[in-house]
Order: sequence, then structure tokens, then C-alpha cells
Amino acid sequence: MSYPHPELAPPEPLAPDGLRVVALGGLGEIGRNMTVFEYGGKLLIVDCGVLFPEADQPGVDLILPDFGYLEGRLDEVEALVLTHAHEDHIGAVPYLLRQREDIPLVGSKLTLALVKSKLTEHRITPQAVEVREGQVHPFGPFDCEFFAVNHSIPDALAVAIKTPAGTVLHTGDFKMDQLPLDGRLTDLAGFARLGGEGVDLLLADSTNAEVPGIVRPERDIAPVLDEVFAYADQRVIVACFASHVHRVQQVLDAAADHERKVAFVGRSMIRNMGVARELGYLRVPGGLLIDLREAEELPPDEVVLISTGSQGEPMSALSRMAGRDHPIRIAEGDTVILASSLIPGNETAVYRVINGLTRLGARVVHKESSLVHVSGHAPAGELLYLLNLVKPRNFMPVHGEWRHLKAHARLASLTGVPRDRVVIAEDGLVVDLLDRKASIAGAVPCGYVYVDGLTVGEVTESQLKDRRILGDEGFISVIVVFDASNGKVVGGPEIHSRGAGIEEAAFSGVLPKVADALDRAAADGVSDAHALRQLARRVIGKWVSDNYRRRPMIIPVVVEV
Amino acid sequence: MSYPHPELAPPEPLAPDGLRVVALGGLGEIGRNMTVFEYGGKLLIVDCGVLFPEADQPGVDLILPDFGYLEGRLDEVEALVLTHAHEDHIGAVPYLLRQREDIPLVGSKLTLALVKSKLTEHRITPQAVEVREGQVHPFGPFDCEFFAVNHSIPDALAVAIKTPAGTVLHTGDFKMDQLPLDGRLTDLAGFARLGGEGVDLLLADSTNAEVPGIVRPERDIAPVLDEVFAYADQRVIVACFASHVHRVQQVLDAAADHERKVAFVGRSMIRNMGVARELGYLRVPGGLLIDLREAEELPPDEVVLISTGSQGEPMSALSRMAGRDHPIRIAEGDTVILASSLIPGNETAVYRVINGLTRLGARVVHKESSLVHVSGHAPAGELLYLLNLVKPRNFMPVHGEWRHLKAHARLASLTGVPRDRVVIAEDGLVVDLLDRKASIAGAVPCGYVYVDGLTVGEVTESQLKDRRILGDEGFISVIVVFDASNGKVVGGPEIHSRGAGIEEAAFSGVLPKVADALDRAAADGVSDAHALRQLARRVIGKWVSDNYRRRPMIIPVVVEV
Repeated sequence: MSYPHPELAPPEPLAPDGLRVVALGGLGEIGRNMTVFEYGGKLLIVDCGVLFPEADQPGVDLILPDFGYLEGRLDEVEALVLTHAHEDHIGAVPYLLRQREDIPLVGSKLTLALVKSKLTEHRITPQAVEVREGQVHPFGPFDCEFFAVNHSIPDALAVAIKTPAGTVLHTGDFKMDQLPLDGRLTDLAGFARLGGEGVDLLLADSTNAEVPGIVRPERDIAPVLDEVFAYADQRVIVACFASHVHRVQQVLDAAADHERKVAFVGRSMIRNMGVARELGYLRVPGGLLIDLREAEELPPDEVVLISTGSQGEPMSALSRMAGRDHPIRIAEGDTVILASSLIPGNETAVYRVINGLTRLGARVVHKESSLVHVSGHAPAGELLYLLNLVKPRNFMPVHGEWRHLKAHARLASLTGVPRDRVVIAEDGLVVDLLDRKASIAGAVPCGYVYVDGLTVGEVTESQLKDRRILGDEGFISVIVVFDASNGKVVGGPEIHSRGAGIEEAAFSGVLPKVADALDRAAADGVSDAHALRQLARRVIGKWVSDNYRRRPMIIPVVVEV
Repeated sequence: MSYPHPELAPPEPLAPDGLRVVALGGLGEIGRNMTVFEYGGKLLIVDCGVLFPEADQPGVDLILPDFGYLEGRLDEVEALVLTHAHEDHIGAVPYLLRQREDIPLVGSKLTLALVKSKLTEHRITPQAVEVREGQVHPFGPFDCEFFAVNHSIPDALAVAIKTPAGTVLHTGDFKMDQLPLDGRLTDLAGFARLGGEGVDLLLADSTNAEVPGIVRPERDIAPVLDEVFAYADQRVIVACFASHVHRVQQVLDAAADHERKVAFVGRSMIRNMGVARELGYLRVPGGLLIDLREAEELPPDEVVLISTGSQGEPMSALSRMAGRDHPIRIAEGDTVILASSLIPGNETAVYRVINGLTRLGARVVHKESSLVHVSGHAPAGELLYLLNLVKPRNFMPVHGEWRHLKAHARLASLTGVPRDRVVIAEDGLVVDLLDRKASIAGAVPCGYVYVDGLTVGEVTESQLKDRRILGDEGFISVIVVFDASNGKVVGGPEIHSRGAGIEEAAFSGVLPKVADALDRAAADGVSDAHALRQLARRVIGKWVSDNYRRRPMIIPVVVEV
């Protein structure tokens, strides 16, 4: 747990007529979105997502919000509202429910279905409250009204939270595709009506606040897919996110038009599309779907595979195809479409997959060469519409790194939100709405909580620092056996090293130096293990630095017998 | 050393009337460009660059071409032609000259000046042969003709290599800016004349072969800089590559127009701009330049800093400013311009710098928000002009990953080069030009040679694999002291662990298991160190896997006393 705002004290208890907003994630990062609202001693949470680790968080599987802020207050949580079923909004739900399993989960039909199928894997059966756009539902003192929003997964919702302290509108993730595939528009009329009634605080998606203009409609991808399919004379493989039902729908339609059968590849793709189909969000023409084994039997020009792995994940089917480590053997003339965004940080992995597939003879179509992806987040041009319709008294950009939050704050100022009512907060900053004015009231701990294997929160920053050193420089350990009864070294020194880039034989150059130093220390009467360890570390550290100009981790071990 | 083409044998000795081409780097990667030409028992090398390591090559400083192919043949090298002074073309020169210091270095005035200032740091004084566009110069059996090309560094050259076996044109890196800042155009007329005489093999820069269209002129950046400067009311900091003389020139001009003084920041920026200015490639109005200390004294709105660090390098001045670890304190209202490309793999680091600067109050302008960078490499539209003017009999794309080489090969086919005369080679493939036809004749070893600290080639792939495991999972070492005279364990087991994410205290759960297992082994008469090590490894490995679902490196050590 870190405390990123040492200059800020924890806040005073909330005033009785105040509304408190604390983001435990999603501000200053893209991921682990989680915002806690407090009024009258009760809490409402919006979203509970994970963040995916970066290169300087080696070995970590997932990063969770720090639930420490909720310690001792879990029973005060009236509900957890889930705006949509992306991992950065729902991925941490199982970890929160482990602490209190009966927190009511509130969401749309598809959102709840996808969350439930995830929770089943964690053997949790949640209390689910299904809602839909247009509905108003009280959760303790929080009256929630839900609005349809368009995003890169169907059935996403925005939520207005009404309390006597004021009304907050939280958009969740959204964009404003005016020709959405399912006809379900972002409810601008509803936002306008709410704005007319008075919105005291707007929290809105900042991901694309730096990007000018508006999004292209999802349906503009269809003619591009059609053309790629028309030129494809062997297998077609499409990689995209496992939750992008509309993207998959367009691929299914193109496959049907070109008389190809489709197989899903990848556990999450199969699971999610099964749920989406069952609930009617995905329309599958009869006989179109086959399984992978059947696909392997068909002539390549009659097959489409829809796969995960669009971010170059090393264990995904697509990466394994690129490395010839998958039953599907990529051959000259195959076509691979990466119908997805390229999340910053994944470029090296994705280009490695593209190069591997190209080398095997495939034509690879991706968003930099063709319109096979559109973003799911509103760019600046659309955010201006939102701000002008809602006319919020106060504005707080969410869901973004600093550069996104700052760009979004600027848009709010341009539309007339007074500068002192635009609050750029970071994770853990406490924002209180008092007398219709939002301001920062303090800070709470909100560090990264790392999931690694079966453990949650056991891998610490200091362990990660060790991993970074070990990963860059390796280690050298020197072992000495010490007889405490007579203060004599009776075994060793022995050196073991991995990853330091020094050949075994080279250590013969330093072993006598260590032995000498230990002998001299013994002659001087030094006989405690700590001093001997320090001595060995110093001798080896100097030798490595002088001869190799490197700084591996040096681990002196004294075993007492 | 790796051998990427096990299916290919080393080539037969070259036929007396043949020309051999072997790329030791630059094919299948962006970096360490180095191509060796052989005719009549003599060798000519074009470029000798480095490759920068990626995340899966932890701790490595630089990657060199494998000079093993030249072993025993260094005396046959007639010359090393350097097309321009970028690190991926000259960075490995010091390492090659360590093997034979008097290899003649051939290049333009600026290229040689920059190489020499680099070699001075390595205490090497090279044999330099200055050439310029339009000149023809024999090096043994290789008649070299040099052509002006436009690139993101001044004074770049292409080279035609004429031998009785045929004529090769190697473009080096180039683009075709038709309004270059220095008026020095890529010599299309020369290429056309050479094409008329007959080019048997064209090697050309593939970096932007996937990108449609043509480049925007470098000078289009000037009005953008002018506008950014006009709105800047505090300090302006521009980060760009330390060799981009024309980009720096444009910043100097903007600074002069807006009555600001300029300081260079960063060792390579100061060194290179000193060289460029001295030779007349950079024009600096009198009194414009100041040093950093003077800049700190001036009012912020009279200052421009031109700095390295545009790729987010952690030790660079710009990264340190973003982390408040630099004498220059970024303040509200400062403007930072990243006037550079964003090299794939550096996104996370660059966005971290942008977020850090934004958080401190700076406005950050970068290529995704404004036209503050244009590429130095010809896109597809320009490559087509080249191919149509040169009309090569054979074509070999160079300088690119597979996706680039393949896209470039496709362009060549479209312009009429027969498919069987388009050779997509990888590093180490041997291409022979015989009877005016190029084809692959075998393969030679050409693995990565890693520079780490003071060592060259000592860090191996297996060491890197160890580093990757250590970096992701840490290690657990278990130490046992063993009395060989009586076959008894007399000390330990003791456990030491770093980075495994397991708290010290938790090991008390497994130590008795290890001790038990050792006791039982002793009872069974097992008494060799190897068997004891395997036993300890197995017990701990199972315990970690069962309890933590992780796979740290396990290092059992038996010290004999």
C-alpha cells in the first residue's frame, strides 16, 4: 500500500449534508476503475475492475484496487453498480466478494450474465439485481437512474446517483456512434433532461479526450471486412477482444456472405459468445458455427476462425500460430485480421506476432493498414456534446492517465465549467460535494494490490524491486560455513550465480580474494555472521564492478554449523 | 551465436565471377545494419550498426552484429562504407575496429566527423576516407559511386558498388522530401542514369514500406513550431534525436523569431550539435546559444531547451524533469514538445514522461497531437518512384522487420521485378549474384552479440533466459552442509529467497519437509551431493506450486565440509 499524497491528510468525517466521492482506481491510469460514493453513512460503489501490469511490474498477473479504504465498512455498502462487463470494470469483483459475498451486484442483463459466468469460475453465486435503461432504483439513500450508452460491448449503462446532497452523473465508458449496430444510442435526450434538472457533478470517460473529432461508426468496418474476405483465397483468422459482440457479429455476417464456416478459438471467446448468443445479443445463422476440430478438416477457403490474442498475449492461440506451436498451421495465402486496438505497451508483442505470421506467408491486416477497428471511447468532439448537454455544476474527469484527465478538464473549461469547479483527482483523493461545490478534502491510501498466482497483496513493491534487479542483472551468492563454537570458517567460500552474465570459471578470480578477506577478518577476531556477510558482499561487489561494470544482486550467506 | 536457418547449409565458396551479399544485421529487425559484399576474394562492408534491446533482453546495453563471419578474413576487408551517422548504422564500428583498427572508414564529411568523435571516446583513431556525392572511388575490386540521399540526418549517401559480376545499388536510409531544408535532394537523376546503365541488384530501405503515400516535407513543421512558441508563455523544452540537425535548426529558427535563448541539454546533443555547427551544417545566429546554467537564471519565457530523451530513456534529462529529479523544475505553463518519432516498444516509457510532465503543469505537444515530427524513411509511394527509376534486375529489401520486407517485396513485384528475382533474405542468409541473377546460396551464423557493461558476447541466450525467470518469479535457494567423510548432513537446510513474493516466515512451512526428506534419504544411504540437490529442489518446487501456483527458480546448494 502506498500513500501517493503525503501532503494531504486523511479527510475529516463527511458532513451530514455532503456527498463523498473516492476513486480507488481509474484516475491516473487506464484500468481498475472503482469509485466509492458515500452519503448518510452508506456507500455505493460504481465498478470494480483490474489493471493489467506493465513491464516494470514483472511476474504480476493482475493489479487490484486497494480495498483497504472499505475495511470495517463493507456492511455499509448498499450496492455495486457495474456499468459494463469489461475486465477493467468488473475484473476485481470476485476479490471484493471474497470479503463480503452478498454485496448486491447491479447491472444490465448482459453485464450480469458475463459477470456471473466469471464468478462461477471463482465458485461465487452473487446477489444480482438486473436493471435496464430508463429505470430508477433506490439503493439505500442512493436513487439510481440508468441510461443507455453505446460502447464496444453491448448493454452498457451510465448511472445518475441522486441524493439530498446533489445529483452525480457517472457515464461509465461510452462513445456516441450515431449509427450503432444494435440501434441502441447513447441516451443524449436523457442526459439533456437530467442536465435540465441539474447535475451537480459529472464524472466522464477521458480515454480519448486527446483525440479530436468523433468516432467512425462501427458499421463502417463491414465493407472493409467484405473486401478482405473477397480477396482471401485461403483461411481467414480474425483476432479481436473476447467481449466485442458487435465486432464478432460483423465477422459472422461477412463469413455468411462469403459462404465460410466459423469456429471460435480461445476459452474466453467461446464462453462470452455463448452467453451473448443465448441472450440474443449475437445472431448466428443456423449451421454457421463449427468447432475447431471440424474447421481443421474443411478446405481452408471455407473457414473463418475468430480468436483471442489480438494484444500479442504469448499464450494465446494467435501467438502460438505465429510461432508454429498450434494445430492450425499458418500457410502461404492465409489472411489474418487484427480487428482490435493496440493497447500501449503491447506494441512489441503485437508486432512480433505480425512478423511471425507474415514470415509464414500470411497477409496480416491491422488497424494501421485498414479500417478494421474503431475505438469504444468518445473523442473530444463527442465529449463536448456531452458537456454542453449536461451542463454540470462541477466536473471530474475519470478513466484516464494524467494526459487524458488534463485534456478532458480543458474541454470542460472551454464549455463553461468554472475552473475552480473542475477537479482533477488521482486515485485515493477524496472529493466532497458540499453546498453543490466539489473540492478535494483529503486523501486515503490506494496503492496497487498485486495478484500473483494464488496470492493477493503478498507481492510487495520491494519484491518487485528485487525482481527488476534480478531480471536486469542476475545474482551472485557466496556461501560460507561458519563454526560458531570456535569462530572459524569451516566450509566455502562457494559461489553460485545465475543471470549475471559471468562464466562459472571466472569466479576463480575472486574466490581467493574472498577467502583471504575472511582469513584476515578471522585473524582480527571478527566472528559474527553479519560482519562476515558484509565483508563477502563488499569484496565481490568491487570485483564485479571493476571487471564487468555491472551491479548484480549479491547475496552473502553464512551457514552456521 | 544462433543459426536461424538449420535447413540451410553454409554456402559453397563463391564462384570466381560471382558477387556475394551477406547481411549480418538489419534483415528481420530495425537496427544493427551491416552488409558484407564479396568479390574476387575481397570484402566490402556497408554500415556497422547496433540494435537496441527489447524487454525480453533484460539488462543488455546494446546488440551487435555477429562478426564471426569475418573471422580470419578481416585482412580482406577493403573498406567499411558508412551511409550516414545514425547509431543503427555506425554504433558497432568501435567494436569492429577493435578487431582490426586500420579498416578504412568511408563516408561523407559529417558522417565521418560524428563517427570520429564517437571513436575518440573509445580511444580509436580511424583511417578515414572522405567522399561526397558524385564521386567514384575504387576500393580493391569494388568501384564505389556515391549519391546524395535525403534523410533525418544531413549528408547521407547511397552507394553503387560496381564489380565485373554486376552493379549493386544500396540506398542506405533515405526519403524523398522534395523541399529539403538544405536543398540537398535525393539524387533521382543519378539513380535514373545508373538504372539506364543497368542495376543488377537493388537493396533499399524498407522501414516505411507499409505506409502509403509520401512524406510531408520537414519544413512543414516550422509553422507548427511557430504557433506553439507563440502560445507558450513560460519555458519551452524541445526533445528530439541528438543527430537530427535539421529539426534542431528549425527549433533554433523559431527561438530566434520569438526572441528566446537556447541551451542544449544532454551529452550527445551537445557533442553532435557542436560538430554540426563547426562544419557548417547547423547555422546558429550570434548570441542565441547559452549554457544550461545561464538558462536557469533567465526568465522562463526567454528560454528554449533542446534536449535528448524523446524516447523516455529513464536517465535522460527529460525523464528526470518529469520525475522532479533535475535542476530544471517544470512549472505550470511550461511547454514541452516531443519532436520525434515514437519507436515501437518505447510507448510505456514515453507516455510515463508525458503524464509526469502534464501532472507538473506542462502542456505537452507530441506527434499524435500536432505535426511536430515527420519520418526519415520513404513510404510506399516514394519507394515506387525509386523502383521505377532504377528498374533493378533483382531486388532485396533491407532495413526492416518481416512485415516491412514483405510489403517492400510486394511493391517491387508490382513495378515489374519478376517474383523469382525478389529475394526476401534474413540476417545470415547468403545471397549470390551469378549471371545477373540473385538467389540464396546458404546461410552463416549471425546471432545476437550482447554488450553488457564491459563485456561483449559473454551474456548468452541462456543467461537471458535465467534473467527472465528471475525477473518474473524470483528465486529460492536452499543450502545444506554435507560432511562427505561420513555422508551426513551437518548444517542447514537453510532457505534464502528474493523476488519470489513469499514472506520469510512462510518458509517455516517447508523447511521441516526438506529436513525430513534429507533424513529419509540419508537413512536410505543416499550420499551424493547431486541426488541431495535434486531432492531438495523437488520438495520445494512442489510446495511452491501447491501453495502459491508459481515457478520461481529453485537453486539447491550442497556445501561439502
